Amino acid sequence: MKSHESGDANYPVSELNQVRRRHDRGFYDHATIHALLDAAMLCHVSYVIDGQPFCTPTFFWREGGRLYWHGSSASRMLRNLAHGEPACLTVTHLDALVLARSGYNHSADYRSVMAFGKARLIEDPQEKARALVMMVDRLFPQRTAGLRPATTQEIKATAVIAMDIERASAKIRARGVVDEDEDYALPIYAERIPVSAVLGQPEPCPRTLEGLERPATLAGYAAGRSLEEALSEAYAGPRSGATTPLASR
Amino acid sequence: MKSHESGDANYPVSELNQVRRRHDRGFYDHATIHALLDAAMLCHVSYVIDGQPFCTPTFFWREGGRLYWHGSSASRMLRNLAHGEPACLTVTHLDALVLARSGYNHSADYRSVMAFGKARLIEDPQEKARALVMMVDRLFPQRTAGLRPATTQEIKATAVIAMDIERASAKIRARGVVDEDEDYALPIYAERIPVSAVLGQPEPCPRTLEGLERPATLAGYAAGRSLEEALSEAYAGPRSGATTPLASR
Repeated sequence: MKSHESGDANYPVSELNQVRRRHDRGFYDHATIHALLDAAMLCHVSYVIDGQPFCTPTFFWREGGRLYWHGSSASRMLRNLAHGEPACLTVTHLDALVLARSGYNHSADYRSVMAFGKARLIEDPQEKARALVMMVDRLFPQRTAGLRPATTQEIKATAVIAMDIERASAKIRARGVVDEDEDYALPIYAERIPVSAVLGQPEPCPRTLEGLERPATLAGYAAGRSLEEALSEAYAGPRSGATTPLASR
Repeated sequence: MKSHESGDANYPVSELNQVRRRHDRGFYDHATIHALLDAAMLCHVSYVIDGQPFCTPTFFWREGGRLYWHGSSASRMLRNLAHGEPACLTVTHLDALVLARSGYNHSADYRSVMAFGKARLIEDPQEKARALVMMVDRLFPQRTAGLRPATTQEIKATAVIAMDIERASAKIRARGVVDEDEDYALPIYAERIPVSAVLGQPEPCPRTLEGLERPATLAGYAAGRSLEEALSEAYAGPRSGATTPLASR
């Protein structure tokens, strides 16, 4: 999986994914784009039904240059993304609000990725089961091995979409307050207010059997940590493919 | 503005916005939908260019049943939303990761809104200037009155899109761990991990003039507070229309 990041590989740039405004904010390399994707679990997917655009929030996961998301087999989104329809999957990290000396220069620091490709439904039950294990273990390394195994009916009820990334771009602003030169002399207060998604105190299920300890594999999800850090760490950690093959269950 | 929330008004339900799966998670009333919108500043907008869907992260703001977003006059998204094209604006609050006893029941607590309508470019410079004041003062009440006024060129360089909400739905999951009845007896650890977007310590611009204090109107944006709380409070507070008319500058 890491091999993608080791070189200077880039996603090809075309009309579709070129960052036109603020070229200095645009990135196309695998390393930057994959790192921003792996630091998120929530994405927004755009797709078109009869000319009407939809923007659906959903979880996603990555394997090399392929993105996956899932949902109910009955879902409108997934039914409509079955056969290679174009889609756009976007991830955004909001890092700060930026209050400048003019309305025009008010802004935000952020890191976002837009990934384009053709969505296809995974039909093969084995491939689907493998993808669903990957989803859980991508967030919570080694967790699937300790869970009640999936039933055939559960796998049937779940639709999984795969999209090979054809084009992608990252857009990053990390500049804080930037005003017009002449505006710095004005008696106007300006600041940057950082924002981050932070984990709270984990709440064990009230029906957890007595004596059951929190698994050590969840240690990364500690109160006060940034979600992004926990997710990136989980992504880099051991995953089911390496340590808990499906066959062992 | 509040009048919209005072009754039991609902957005009409149609094929477009009906929450099909998990009906119990769907809401259509103005009060629920507007409150979720006002607790956010970042949205994702979907639109279509030549059959290709795009999912763009951007700021937005609300006035009654109308949503606004903005960008460069040169932006592809805004150029393509000029004339009543269909769009979908989505806001998502992620509240918790939910680790259940089966992979199938892993989930998340979240609150999201999908709003559908036709996007149109605001051409009238006066209307555009008013909308841009609203954007800054919606986030930072009364701030525009203390800023260097916008120049004609800045207003010209900015495109503002308005979209009257025609259909909308909110989808809310706030249930924590929910397992199959028979799974509660299994010796599997399950928990809910809360997540929220939290403000960090504000960082004054290093070039702020000596002696300039942080305005009291920014007190809501205090370190450790949730972004959502600060935004909701700012939205409910005094805005330019009421206290700092454009004409006073």
